[in-house]
Amino acid sequence: MAVTRRQFLQRVGVAGGAGVMYGTMGALGFAPAGAAAATPAFTPPKASDFTLTGRSRKKVVVLGAGIAGLTTAYELGKAGYDITVLEARHRPGGRNWTVRGGTKETELDGRTQRSTFAEGQYMNAGPARLPQHHVTMDYCRELGVPLEVFTNSNAQAWIYDSVSGTKVRWREAKADTYGYVSELLAKATDKGALDAELTGEDQERLIAFLRSFGAIGDAASGYAYTGSGRRGYTTDPGAGLQDGEYAAPPSVADVLARGAGRYFSFEMGWDQAMLMFQPVGGMDRIAYAFEAAVEARSTIRYGAEVQSVMNTQDGVEVTYVDGATTRTVTADFCVCAVPPHIAARFRTNLPPGVQESLAYAVPASTGKIGLQYGRRWWEEDEDLYGGITNTDLDVSTIWYPSYGYNGRRGTVVGYYNFGANADAYAALPHRGRLQKALAQGRKVHGPVYGKDIESTFSVAWSKIRYSEGGWVGWPDQTGREYRRLLRPSGNVYFAGDHLSHYIAWQAGAILSARDVVTHLHTRVMGAPA
Amino acid sequence: MAVTRRQFLQRVGVAGGAGVMYGTMGALGFAPAGAAAATPAFTPPKASDFTLTGRSRKKVVVLGAGIAGLTTAYELGKAGYDITVLEARHRPGGRNWTVRGGTKETELDGRTQRSTFAEGQYMNAGPARLPQHHVTMDYCRELGVPLEVFTNSNAQAWIYDSVSGTKVRWREAKADTYGYVSELLAKATDKGALDAELTGEDQERLIAFLRSFGAIGDAASGYAYTGSGRRGYTTDPGAGLQDGEYAAPPSVADVLARGAGRYFSFEMGWDQAMLMFQPVGGMDRIAYAFEAAVEARSTIRYGAEVQSVMNTQDGVEVTYVDGATTRTVTADFCVCAVPPHIAARFRTNLPPGVQESLAYAVPASTGKIGLQYGRRWWEEDEDLYGGITNTDLDVSTIWYPSYGYNGRRGTVVGYYNFGANADAYAALPHRGRLQKALAQGRKVHGPVYGKDIESTFSVAWSKIRYSEGGWVGWPDQTGREYRRLLRPSGNVYFAGDHLSHYIAWQAGAILSARDVVTHLHTRVMGAPA
Repeated sequence: MAVTRRQFLQRVGVAGGAGVMYGTMGALGFAPAGAAAATPAFTPPKASDFTLTGRSRKKVVVLGAGIAGLTTAYELGKAGYDITVLEARHRPGGRNWTVRGGTKETELDGRTQRSTFAEGQYMNAGPARLPQHHVTMDYCRELGVPLEVFTNSNAQAWIYDSVSGTKVRWREAKADTYGYVSELLAKATDKGALDAELTGEDQERLIAFLRSFGAIGDAASGYAYTGSGRRGYTTDPGAGLQDGEYAAPPSVADVLARGAGRYFSFEMGWDQAMLMFQPVGGMDRIAYAFEAAVEARSTIRYGAEVQSVMNTQDGVEVTYVDGATTRTVTADFCVCAVPPHIAARFRTNLPPGVQESLAYAVPASTGKIGLQYGRRWWEEDEDLYGGITNTDLDVSTIWYPSYGYNGRRGTVVGYYNFGANADAYAALPHRGRLQKALAQGRKVHGPVYGKDIESTFSVAWSKIRYSEGGWVGWPDQTGREYRRLLRPSGNVYFAGDHLSHYIAWQAGAILSARDVVTHLHTRVMGAPA
Repeated sequence: MAVTRRQFLQRVGVAGGAGVMYGTMGALGFAPAGAAAATPAFTPPKASDFTLTGRSRKKVVVLGAGIAGLTTAYELGKAGYDITVLEARHRPGGRNWTVRGGTKETELDGRTQRSTFAEGQYMNAGPARLPQHHVTMDYCRELGVPLEVFTNSNAQAWIYDSVSGTKVRWREAKADTYGYVSELLAKATDKGALDAELTGEDQERLIAFLRSFGAIGDAASGYAYTGSGRRGYTTDPGAGLQDGEYAAPPSVADVLARGAGRYFSFEMGWDQAMLMFQPVGGMDRIAYAFEAAVEARSTIRYGAEVQSVMNTQDGVEVTYVDGATTRTVTADFCVCAVPPHIAARFRTNLPPGVQESLAYAVPASTGKIGLQYGRRWWEEDEDLYGGITNTDLDVSTIWYPSYGYNGRRGTVVGYYNFGANADAYAALPHRGRLQKALAQGRKVHGPVYGKDIESTFSVAWSKIRYSEGGWVGWPDQTGREYRRLLRPSGNVYFAGDHLSHYIAWQAGAILSARDVVTHLHTRVMGAPA
C-alpha cells in the first residue's frame, strides 16, 4: 500500500514532538503535503512547434531570475519564445547566492556588509547541497556545471551536547547506539519476547545481523556490547606490535540519556542521504550557467524592481522601476517567479483570492555565517575533512568546507539555524552575530575556534531584500489557497519551489517552472494558429 | 576497560562465520594482531642532527620505491642521509599503481595488456581510498597532493542478491532493516522484556529514539513499520500537488531472509567510514609527489632487480641486475621495503630465522577490472553518482567513479574481489575476465552494462611481478616470526605495511617506515661521533 509523505510525516510527528518532527521533515525535504498524483515526464517545448504550425512566437515576461525564473526563461527561450526576465537584484540566482570576496549586501535594517573572503573562498548563503536524484543534477549536466561531493555527513564530525558539555564523534555515537540497540534486541529475542512476531529461523537471522551490526558478543556473553574499534581508538593501530586500543563505552543509560541518536535519521532522508553534491566553485555556478544560456536567446534586465502586474485584454502589462525610471513591459504572458510574500505586494488587477493565496505563505527564518580561517585546524588538528557537526546550541550546525582540502585556508559555516535561533542572530548586527557564533563554536572546538579568523560574512534571510525569508511554509498545502496558485490567473502564472513538494530545494523551483512551461505552451499551441 | 582490535575480532569472529569475520576485518582494517603499546609521536630526524654533532652522514640503500621505501628515503633524505633507492619497476609506488592510457603490464604468465584508457580516465589498481585519520593525509598535505572525496558508500548504490535475482538501493535496505529492528525492539520493550535491563525512563528514551530511527508508528499502532520516504518513492515528490508515494516494504521475514543488513557494518569501520578521500587524478599522485621530493636529494634507480643483500663488517652490500648488468651498492644500512614473500627469495647471509619470517607471510589474492564507458549510464539512467554496489556474485563489488561526474565518459571498477573469487578471475586471460565481469554486471544493471565500452584493463595481483599478491596476512602477528622482522638483522631493516596493523593500507607502510627511520637514526646518533 502506497503511503504519501504527508501521511508519513503525520505519523512520525504526532508522538515525536517538535524536535523529531523538525528533524524528520528536514530529512524528508521539508513540507508535508497533499495527495500524490503521477505527472507525465517533462517534454520541453520545441522551436519547431512554432515553425511547423505557423504560429507566431509568444512574448513572455518572467519576474525573477531565481532558479524558477531562469528555468522558465531557459525552457521557453529554447522553444523560440520572446522572453524578458526582470530581476530586482544585479545578479542571477535569487536565493541561490554564493558570497565571495567583493560581495556587498545591505540588509533591510540598512546595515551593510562587504565580503573580503580571499580568492577561491566562498559561502553558499542559500542552497548548498544537491541530492543525486534531483532534476538539478540533470541541469548541471546540460549546462556543463562541474560537480563535486558535498560532505553532508561525516563519521569524524561531532555531536555536541550542552547538558553534559561534551562532544562525541558521529562514529562513536553510532557505534554505541547501534551496539546497545543490538544487545537489547538480541537479548529480548533470546528471551522469547518476539516469538509471536518471528519464526525460529527469522530469530536466528536477526541475531546474526545484530552481531555484525552492533559488534556485540555471543549468546554466552549475553550478546554484550562492550565497544569496538568503530568507536575510534584511544591508541590507534600502528606499526610493529601496536594493535589498536579502544575505551569501554558509557552505560546504555548514559547513551540513551545523551540522545545523540536523535540526529541519526537525518542522513537516511530521501533528500539528505549521502552522496550529496555541489557545483565546483560555488552553488551560483548553476545560476550563472543558466544566465549564460538564457542570455544567448533572451534578455535579463537586472536592477528591475517590479511594481505592478496587470492582466490586459490580450496579455499582460508589467511596470518596474529601474533606478529612478519607471518602465513598462507588455507581453502575452507573465510568469511570476518571485517569493509569494514578495509578489503579494505588487499592485495587480488579479482577483483578491490570488493576493490572499500569495499572502498565505509563511516565510521561514534561517541564517548562516561564514568564517574564513587562515588555517584548516579542523583538518590539521581534528582529522576532520568536511561534514557537519550537530549541536543543541543556538548555532544548530557547524559545517566544514567541502572544497580546498589541505589548503592554506578554509571557510567554515559557523551556524546554519532556523526559526527562533535564526531570529535571535538576525536581530544582531554582524559583529554581534560573529561574537555569539564564536562563543558557541568555542564550546565545541575550544580556543582554536577564535583564532586565525581572516574574514567573516553573515546572512539573515529574513532581512535580505527581495527574499525576506529562506523559504516559505504553507499552513495547508492541499487547500484552495495553495491550489489557486497552481493555475494561471488570466495570463499570469506562478512558479517557484513554494509551489512544489521540494520546498527550499532548487529542484522544487525547476519542477514548478517545468509545470508552468508545459501548461503555458500547451495553451499557446492549443490556440488557433 | 580498553580492548584491543584482536580481542574484538576474536569476539566477533567466533560465532559470525567466515563471512562476518571477513566483513568485520575489512571494516576494521584487516589483520587481527597482538597487544597494543602506545608509541611516541614520530619525530623526523633533522639535518642539524649531523651538523651539530660532527657525525658524518650515513649511507642507506633502500630496497623498493613503494610507499614504505619512499617514506624511508624521504624522511632520511631530509635529514641529510645519503640515500639510494633500488626499484625493480620503472615507476614509483609499488602497489600504489594507477592504470592510465599507455600503461603496459605483463603478468607472470607472459600475457601483456596495454591500456587505451582515454585522457583523464584511470583505475587505481591498488589502494584507492584514504580515511581522514590516516597519516597518509598528512603526507598529502606536506607533499601538496590535492584531495577529493572518495565515494565509499552511497545510499543510491545497490545491494544485489543472486538468490532472489533482485537488487535494492542501499537506502531502501537500510530503511526497511532499521524500520523492522525498531519495531521489534519497541514491541519487546513495551512488553516488558527489557525491564531488567532498562529503567522506565530509559525505556521511554529508547522508544523515542526508535520512533525516529526506524520511522515507525506509535504505541497504538504496535510501533508498526510500514515504510517511509527513506526507502525511495514510486512517485517522487514534485510540483503542485504531487506529494511523494512510496511502496509498502516487504515483510520482516523477507527482509531478514534477504540479509542485505550483512553489508551495513562495512561503513561503520574505523578505516572505511565516510568520509573517505582520494588524490585528484589518481592514487599514484602520492607516489609521484614522493618521488619528486626524494629525487630532490637522493637517487632512485629504476629497473634495478635486487639479487642479494649481505651484511658486511661495517655495513651492507646489495647486488642488483639492471638489464643485463649486475651492479653492487655498498652502504652503512639497508632498508628492505619490498613484500616479504618477494624478499624471501633474495640471496642473503641473514640468519635463517629471518628468511623463515619473510616466508611466513601469506600473500592474499585480489583483483580489479576497469571498464571505461563512453556514457555515464549509472548517472544518467540510475541517478547513481559514485559509490559501491555490493553483490553476492563473484565480482563482489562494483565501483562507480569518484571523479568526472556528469562527464562524457567514465571508468567503472567491474570487480574488486578477493581469495577464491580473485583466483578464478586471475586464472583467465583478460578477455575471459572481461566476459565474466560483464555477464555478472548485467545481472545487476541489465544490458546497458555491456554497451558503450571503450576500453578495459584488468589486474590480478597474484600475477603481478614484484608484488605477487595484494597484501599479506600473518598466521600470527604476535609471535617470534613476525617480531623478528621488527628489529634490524645486523645492518638490514625491514619496512612495509605488512609490519603494521594497517596491512593493505598506505598508512601501514608509512608508519612502519617511520618506525625504521626512528630506530635507525637513534642508532646512528647513539654511536660515537
